[in-house]
Amino acid sequence: MTHSLSATIALPAWCEDALAGDVVADSPDARMAFAVDLAERNVAAGTGGPFAAAVFESESGQLIAAGVNVVVASSMAIAHAEMVAIALAGAATGSHDLATHGATELIVSTEPCAMCLGAVGWSGVTSLVCGARDEDARAVGFDEGVKPARWAADLEAAGIAVTRDVRRDAAAAVLVRYVESGGMIYNGRAALEGERGD
Amino acid sequence: MTHSLSATIALPAWCEDALAGDVVADSPDARMAFAVDLAERNVAAGTGGPFAAAVFESESGQLIAAGVNVVVASSMAIAHAEMVAIALAGAATGSHDLATHGATELIVSTEPCAMCLGAVGWSGVTSLVCGARDEDARAVGFDEGVKPARWAADLEAAGIAVTRDVRRDAAAAVLVRYVESGGMIYNGRAALEGERGD
Repeated sequence: MTHSLSATIALPAWCEDALAGDVVADSPDARMAFAVDLAERNVAAGTGGPFAAAVFESESGQLIAAGVNVVVASSMAIAHAEMVAIALAGAATGSHDLATHGATELIVSTEPCAMCLGAVGWSGVTSLVCGARDEDARAVGFDEGVKPARWAADLEAAGIAVTRDVRRDAAAAVLVRYVESGGMIYNGRAALEGERGD
Repeated sequence: MTHSLSATIALPAWCEDALAGDVVADSPDARMAFAVDLAERNVAAGTGGPFAAAVFESESGQLIAAGVNVVVASSMAIAHAEMVAIALAGAATGSHDLATHGATELIVSTEPCAMCLGAVGWSGVTSLVCGARDEDARAVGFDEGVKPARWAADLEAAGIAVTRDVRRDAAAAVLVRYVESGGMIYNGRAALEGERGD
């Protein structure tokens, strides 16, 4: 067996247009609208799960990097939207630690799963803004993993401000549309059990 | 600002030799010896943190993919050893879900942090074998994040067998050597506080 020495996390081709030029969004609400639109496009294009994330400079509102779920297309279990956004933000800023770039805000169209929650803590972002709730994802069949019960308080204790329910309804509606259109519930336990969302 | 559309997770150059040809290790102990050696080499080469991971076929003992910590070198907060190994295993097998490949075992030189713990659940591996304990990493200054208290039992409940303390002393010794040699404690909170391990 040949052993892979590298793997590339790549956004779908349609992102080239979606992310062209400067993207500036002044408020958490506007930033969430941008992320929910990316999630929606990911579903419409059939390029991945109904999740998107984006890292913005908190003060200027400049987009640093965006991510959508590309787990299946990239053959990469870890390629959740938040992970992609954090990885690409590192590439954009040249540091593994976004704290070196100043205050940054991570926008997530759905509250992070257990893995992504851990990654938020390592990313160096100073605030997290969530759209759909964890339970909205679970309600349509996604497994979010075992998360500490007080995860939002834990992040706050680590110096990361958390805002929830920003455009929750719009973000949750994308989850429902994905499942209704027969989208694959691709995550761990569901995959082991052969479940799908259709 | 130009928005990155892709980022590559790459092993250090020395891995090309270390992973050349078939690698077969029949027992969890032999697989852990392989992983601890990779962690040691990563420290000696100065290419990253003192952590390594590897995915083996449980029955044949064939190595599918290996990972070492490349957080700083790759400017990628998520590039912990386990994440790299899982990503490269996906590339090697052509699927985001290792369960499609049969029974696989993830060897980790240190028990997973909060993020990697979540990733184990999504990876499709059927067993996890750990070397150094979480508390060995914390003892030398690494932050493992907020993990569910019964994380090993949670994995078992999800159908993933967990074995702990395999070559724990050897694996923990690599952590100590890294810190004693002035290695950077690069993870989230420490980075925010400007702490280092020297």
